[in-house]
Amino acid sequence: MTAIHLRRALLPEGWRDEVRLVFADGLIASVESDAPAAPGDEVAEVGVPGMANLHSHAFQRAMAGLTEQRGGKTDTFWTWRETMYRFALSIGPDEMEAVAALLYAEMLEAGFTSVGEFHYLHHAPDGQPYANIAELAERIVAAAQTTGLGLTLLPVFYAHGNFGGAAPHEGQRRFLNDPARFARLLEASRAAVARLPGASVGVAPHSLRAVTEAELTAVIAMAEGGPIHMHIAEQVREVDDSLAWVGARPVQWLLARFAVDRRWCLIHATHMTDFETTGLARTGAVAGLCPITEGNLGDGIFPARPFRAAGGRFGIGSDSNVRIGVAAELRQLEYAQRLLHRERNVLAEAGGSTGRALLDAAAAGGAQALGAAMHGLRVGAPADLVTLAAAGPLYAHLADDQLLDAWVFSAGNALVDGVWARGIKRVSGGRHHDRAALSERYRAAMATLIG
Amino acid sequence: MTAIHLRRALLPEGWRDEVRLVFADGLIASVESDAPAAPGDEVAEVGVPGMANLHSHAFQRAMAGLTEQRGGKTDTFWTWRETMYRFALSIGPDEMEAVAALLYAEMLEAGFTSVGEFHYLHHAPDGQPYANIAELAERIVAAAQTTGLGLTLLPVFYAHGNFGGAAPHEGQRRFLNDPARFARLLEASRAAVARLPGASVGVAPHSLRAVTEAELTAVIAMAEGGPIHMHIAEQVREVDDSLAWVGARPVQWLLARFAVDRRWCLIHATHMTDFETTGLARTGAVAGLCPITEGNLGDGIFPARPFRAAGGRFGIGSDSNVRIGVAAELRQLEYAQRLLHRERNVLAEAGGSTGRALLDAAAAGGAQALGAAMHGLRVGAPADLVTLAAAGPLYAHLADDQLLDAWVFSAGNALVDGVWARGIKRVSGGRHHDRAALSERYRAAMATLIG
Repeated sequence: MTAIHLRRALLPEGWRDEVRLVFADGLIASVESDAPAAPGDEVAEVGVPGMANLHSHAFQRAMAGLTEQRGGKTDTFWTWRETMYRFALSIGPDEMEAVAALLYAEMLEAGFTSVGEFHYLHHAPDGQPYANIAELAERIVAAAQTTGLGLTLLPVFYAHGNFGGAAPHEGQRRFLNDPARFARLLEASRAAVARLPGASVGVAPHSLRAVTEAELTAVIAMAEGGPIHMHIAEQVREVDDSLAWVGARPVQWLLARFAVDRRWCLIHATHMTDFETTGLARTGAVAGLCPITEGNLGDGIFPARPFRAAGGRFGIGSDSNVRIGVAAELRQLEYAQRLLHRERNVLAEAGGSTGRALLDAAAAGGAQALGAAMHGLRVGAPADLVTLAAAGPLYAHLADDQLLDAWVFSAGNALVDGVWARGIKRVSGGRHHDRAALSERYRAAMATLIG
Repeated sequence: MTAIHLRRALLPEGWRDEVRLVFADGLIASVESDAPAAPGDEVAEVGVPGMANLHSHAFQRAMAGLTEQRGGKTDTFWTWRETMYRFALSIGPDEMEAVAALLYAEMLEAGFTSVGEFHYLHHAPDGQPYANIAELAERIVAAAQTTGLGLTLLPVFYAHGNFGGAAPHEGQRRFLNDPARFARLLEASRAAVARLPGASVGVAPHSLRAVTEAELTAVIAMAEGGPIHMHIAEQVREVDDSLAWVGARPVQWLLARFAVDRRWCLIHATHMTDFETTGLARTGAVAGLCPITEGNLGDGIFPARPFRAAGGRFGIGSDSNVRIGVAAELRQLEYAQRLLHRERNVLAEAGGSTGRALLDAAAAGGAQALGAAMHGLRVGAPADLVTLAAAGPLYAHLADDQLLDAWVFSAGNALVDGVWARGIKRVSGGRHHDRAALSERYRAAMATLIG
């Protein structure tokens, strides 16, 4: 049992004073407002719910700084992907674990308390399975366990190089499985995750480029009620290839052929017609937006305004992990919308704070996408809490939603003070408790990997 | 005399090993590469030139977190401006100095070593001049002196509410002067700046909305060879108003009527035709880009690709100061371009690093815009140096331009270690030496201002 007393906290019903939270077994056991602190309570200023990071490829964190060099006359997502494949072919299990562990500590420091790891690097560099088929999945589980970040592991099914069952690219060999071997991998992944309290497993058919209709049907059947994540419509060329293949756009095709529902999370969904946008919104599925990566890769701007107007749900993911921040992702999302529409506060309600609206929506969508039954500071939800350093001098004059606006648009990660995931405090003063050791392990791994 | 020894430094001729810099009287007195450290040298890892911040309205720093609430059905630059005017009417001299001082410390912490303060808040809240006409200008000078940030003070001439000499808005009363009173203000500002080593004064006709052609002519004549800064074409409505006024767009009109040259810095210049874009590029003037503020205010996306192709020069400014970072401004600039063009590394040369290209161009353009005769780590230039925490474990595997890419796209301010401005070290371990005192003074000022 841990008890935390907050001067002010954002509860599901709104901001409340003198909030006392009790955590037990990784969950919130009680929530009282206008309550005094008891002896032994940890005391903090302002508390908000932790955020789910719904889309990560952990190993790509190690590529930060290595891909911002212009390749030639044109440089696109597709040239970036070539670099990423070369990098993916070189990383071993120890490096994978070291990179993921530092990354997950950084996520906690930035206010994320859980991650959906879209895990596609399965096999040895020659494309053959490791002796333990779930070797690399176990490394992801170990990184989550070491750092305390909540984990929804999403083993990726990948079989083809483009729409219509095209042969895979040589650089994809570590990702590939047929449905039978994927079923074994999934079973081994479930066993690995079972030892991590509160962790869960979903399935991730990589994209319509990588699976046939029959394979998609088979993989969805393996989900056992868990989340289903898939990349879709990230790039214009992908839409063009889909049109050439079946005369339909990726989202259009998926919505017509599959019963997309609340269990689904469609990553990116950048390029949609109005019909697709409202259609996706009505399914109740989550759009998995990755604003920093979508900016970095030049994907395009998500149609957030019509999607939200139609009731669409979204969450945020750090995807390529080039930069980690709850605030930074939401800021990039909103700024791209402002530049597109030439307005301000695009994703707020009239009279409401943009920071609050973005945080509320992304927390709800993120929790749904990771298969969490509950979220927020309420009894029964995971004990995922972020405290903001509101007592510091720079933002002392701001209250409640204004402080959230300052977090998202001004201070960023610097405002994060303490972070509890599943009831255990992992970050104090903005630093993960094991940062020094994890950093050293990362440095050693990078020396092996890059030299 | 101060000597700094760097394991690696970015000199005008490129990256060099074992660089020894000697600073004297605020300038770089010598630069040697492949040189050993001498006893008493300060030793650091990686050194790069300091960056000029070419556009700031210091008092707006205090509005961070207060304007991200949606005002109504539409919320634009113009509704934001109403809030800013109300705020501008309430701030007094002591608050101005406290806000500017903390802001300037934050700029140094982020890698900026000089600022162009586009200073338009001149008079008392009732619109009457203070007993000392340069009261508020002196507070800006004091903030620069306290923190050590290099200053180019740009007193703003503001006389009208819209194109064609329209009557000013009530909320603009603290900004207003006629040319005769502006001349007195300018003289007093020059006297105040004279006591600050290396500081300078330019003129800033606010925008074509705020000055008539005759006033613009008169103000330019007062520049005495110094920089001339002006807001232009930030908003589509401004372009429409200009077309309605004289049948010409703002940049089109200015280039046709005035001899715009290298002394000019046109702030934003967001909305230009191809003809205006190439025309502006050919003048040698600097486009003063403020990517974070332009995103925050929903201005639009600068036509950077055709502008650069035509040889256009640019620098960066933090403008509304909602968030401070050399890296953050350049990242936002490049990401907006990537989203617009759906490509990567838009502002790099083929084969070159985007971070390096952005930093080089913005340092050159920024120095030009602030009237600096020289910049960079060369003899005779201001002793403005930033050291990056490259020895830290996260980026230890990166070298030279890759480290700049990591700064811009991954780590941001966290990579800044030491900062020297005009030869004096002001920042160590990423923290301004006076941050604690400046923060406390800021907190007290905000308590007065906001309550």
